[in-house]
Amino acid sequence: MAAQIPAEALQLRSLVRADQTLELSLDTVPVPEPGPNEVLIRIEATPVNPSDLGLLLAGADVTTAASAGTPDRPVVTARIPDAAMRGLTARVGVPMPVGNEGAGTVVAAGASDAAQRLLGRRVAAAGGAMYAQYRAVDTAFCLELPPDATAADGASSFVNPMTALGMIETMRMETHTALVHTAAASNLGQMLNRLCQEDEIPLVNIVRKPEQEELLRAAGAAFVCDSSKPEFMDELTAALTQTGATLGFDATGGGNLASQILSCMEAAANATASGYSRYGSTVHKQVYIYGSLDTSPTVLTRNYGLAWGIGGWLLTPFLGKIGLDGLNRLRERVAAELTTTFASTYAAEVSLHGALALDTLTAYAQRATGQKYLIRPDLDD
Amino acid sequence: MAAQIPAEALQLRSLVRADQTLELSLDTVPVPEPGPNEVLIRIEATPVNPSDLGLLLAGADVTTAASAGTPDRPVVTARIPDAAMRGLTARVGVPMPVGNEGAGTVVAAGASDAAQRLLGRRVAAAGGAMYAQYRAVDTAFCLELPPDATAADGASSFVNPMTALGMIETMRMETHTALVHTAAASNLGQMLNRLCQEDEIPLVNIVRKPEQEELLRAAGAAFVCDSSKPEFMDELTAALTQTGATLGFDATGGGNLASQILSCMEAAANATASGYSRYGSTVHKQVYIYGSLDTSPTVLTRNYGLAWGIGGWLLTPFLGKIGLDGLNRLRERVAAELTTTFASTYAAEVSLHGALALDTLTAYAQRATGQKYLIRPDLDD
Repeated sequence: MAAQIPAEALQLRSLVRADQTLELSLDTVPVPEPGPNEVLIRIEATPVNPSDLGLLLAGADVTTAASAGTPDRPVVTARIPDAAMRGLTARVGVPMPVGNEGAGTVVAAGASDAAQRLLGRRVAAAGGAMYAQYRAVDTAFCLELPPDATAADGASSFVNPMTALGMIETMRMETHTALVHTAAASNLGQMLNRLCQEDEIPLVNIVRKPEQEELLRAAGAAFVCDSSKPEFMDELTAALTQTGATLGFDATGGGNLASQILSCMEAAANATASGYSRYGSTVHKQVYIYGSLDTSPTVLTRNYGLAWGIGGWLLTPFLGKIGLDGLNRLRERVAAELTTTFASTYAAEVSLHGALALDTLTAYAQRATGQKYLIRPDLDD
Repeated sequence: MAAQIPAEALQLRSLVRADQTLELSLDTVPVPEPGPNEVLIRIEATPVNPSDLGLLLAGADVTTAASAGTPDRPVVTARIPDAAMRGLTARVGVPMPVGNEGAGTVVAAGASDAAQRLLGRRVAAAGGAMYAQYRAVDTAFCLELPPDATAADGASSFVNPMTALGMIETMRMETHTALVHTAAASNLGQMLNRLCQEDEIPLVNIVRKPEQEELLRAAGAAFVCDSSKPEFMDELTAALTQTGATLGFDATGGGNLASQILSCMEAAANATASGYSRYGSTVHKQVYIYGSLDTSPTVLTRNYGLAWGIGGWLLTPFLGKIGLDGLNRLRERVAAELTTTFASTYAAEVSLHGALALDTLTAYAQRATGQKYLIRPDLDD
């Protein structure tokens, strides 16, 4: 290893204590030697995705968060409610590294050609434990960035791009021809909006605020429905009738939005049907819940016959379904369109220490659209 | 046609009026001539299934039911709530015949060999409009009953038997190995219990009352969980751990039962897993809602990761999936085990007039387990 690589470096860890307390800390861990087909990445940018927050915060009540430790070694504690604690027994007492994806510079490499070829290059990577100064990753999980791309450009090149592409692939695999997406002004939503325009797939964007509708319309979205408007259900039904969308991806999860989508899909199906169908329309209507921005229960009114489904959707099993060839096909597209179709924007950049500041933690814990944080482990405090 | 067949006969009809009133009546309709491949059945037994009540009652509030008409031609009216009315626009002003299935004697037949062969025989049939004294049915929808079977024995030989068999077929098609069933003491539930014992499929029966648990245990059920008991969730988790059931069929639909089943399936999956899985267990957990005994919204707590699905299940599209060969295979089994595995029991028998008596209507509208009615259109009043 080169002389400038330290023996130890910082890693952010999330610990669930038996006393029902979440403890977030910066720990010093040994910098790993890369294995034969691994590279050691100095992480320079890693996003705080909604999909990271479950592992990071463990369902803790962030309004109870308190700071302890020292400026050098900050520790944040917060109370975990009973309901959240039930699902956490398997991780009690085990400090867990966090961070699904990130990007940085390869500072050491194993002996394999694939690893050596990446030495000195800037790469994006997925695989967890990215909220750290250094991370060893198998080259199979690395994506070499174009020469003009920054680490920030590449930081979110896996979770959101693969999820957006996964929605389109799922649509095709399950023989739908158009999509509905909620929380549609998110980084992921904007990405999906660009992708669907490129691929000429009708997309119904559901947002919660007028300014989010404006943002998407300015980005060329043909169908945007604001759920805060009284005419939401009518507008959604009209958009579904026009697009024929019978598949939705819902990031909110809780409340009645998924059920509203199914109700409006049913109304759209019946608008073009002839005569009374006693069990509802025969067209299959599906909503996949892929996030939980609203953690309250999902409420289904079931006024849409019996040809409907709701289920969880997760990236990993989807990638398993399409196999390595499918994954590589999607990754090539991401690499080619990294700073255009798949571009992300961030509300703020923080260091690892900054990520544990209470005001910052409270901000990203809200999962608010337009409030995405980028952690820069290479920044000094 | 033989001399004893009248030119006109009674048919029960359900009408949704534009003034938001349900009107049930007995009307005189022409007795049809059977087509070349049809038989004319004198209906002698036809059950009131939960699946008939949607069409019959149109979501009307039966507490507002009132009698009108004459003793010969009874008319019942009831108020339809706003919420139910929204889905009924396509049937306003169209009197609809009711009754999914029934059995009786073939009193006339078309010219085809298949039709002529059934003349004078007792048959069961499906296809709707069975709440009537006569019904012409294509021979393809007829099942000849064994010589010792009564019309009552054959009346329920389609909906419940095909649904029970459909659950098992669905389980196999979707690669599950055991089943969960709710409202398990119903006629259908008892049938499924016998079928699963014959086929050695582990079945977790969920009931709502101690006497229902007793009934199923007496019928040899190994796993019965009473949702009215405080230890329900623990007992259900234990049964799911033992059976490995990851597919449920829920007749209730509303409330949190489907969600409880998924929660306990997740707990069962985690009981045998090693280590913490941040997105929940990877085993797919599925519940199909095939009835709506509880018409309140379905409430999903989503504390079971992302590998889950809920959806509607309906017999007709399932039969479409398995095709004519599949249907015939299932029908042969039903015919062979009609009075054993597929036997039904009824709380009461009523005439067509009796079916419109207010106390009777109120009773079957409750969809209570053990309160199934059989209509005997051949009975005089």
